[in-house]
Amino acid sequence: MALSVGLGLGMFLPKKLTAAKAAKPMIVHQVFFWLKQPKKDLKAVMKGCKDIGKLKSAHSYQVGIPAATAKRPVIDDSYHIALTVNFKSIEDHDIYQEDPIHLEFIEQHSDKWEKVQIYDFEVE
Amino acid sequence: MALSVGLGLGMFLPKKLTAAKAAKPMIVHQVFFWLKQPKKDLKAVMKGCKDIGKLKSAHSYQVGIPAATAKRPVIDDSYHIALTVNFKSIEDHDIYQEDPIHLEFIEQHSDKWEKVQIYDFEVE
Repeated sequence: MALSVGLGLGMFLPKKLTAAKAAKPMIVHQVFFWLKQPKKDLKAVMKGCKDIGKLKSAHSYQVGIPAATAKRPVIDDSYHIALTVNFKSIEDHDIYQEDPIHLEFIEQHSDKWEKVQIYDFEVE
Repeated sequence: MALSVGLGLGMFLPKKLTAAKAAKPMIVHQVFFWLKQPKKDLKAVMKGCKDIGKLKSAHSYQVGIPAATAKRPVIDDSYHIALTVNFKSIEDHDIYQEDPIHLEFIEQHSDKWEKVQIYDFEVE
């Protein structure tokens, strides 16, 4: 019994360690989209964001909408979609940019947004 | 053996589920700072960002600087510091905003920045 529970531990430890390491991505690609017709197009663009966030070159991703935090002059809540894509390296970011699925996302949806603002940062 | 491995699985499943849930914070508080004198003040403000990111109300945080991704018109790389603070709820975000250590950070450093831009979003 002790041995077999021990084997159970061994089965799970590597996954736990991987998750801990994965928690600190090196490059954060933070994108905000302002849509021309948010009521009409929000769902389709969000679905597209989720598809590109799942590309192999991406470490992890998040898709969101403005939060209901208190309004303040320093807060911009005029955008419609926030997409965060995390990469292990700039090389992975560059592969993502040129991925045919990413390029298809831009071709399919770029007429739906009036503005895109991107901030790329390197986590310390 | 099959039963005891089954017990091993049972021991770890709740932790795995907790970890999976924790990996997806609900509220992202994304802050960008433009400093008046980055060469002089970058380190001190980054240190302050790390201190407030560690507050109990915050789920997790990241501090970064502009990444060396290719320059494009849609990318703003003019800021000096990116601070991401993740919260489990808007309530936790509100506790963080009023935390004396957060207020002290603003009092100590706000004369060092010329602009702050914040985006709060709710992850789907």
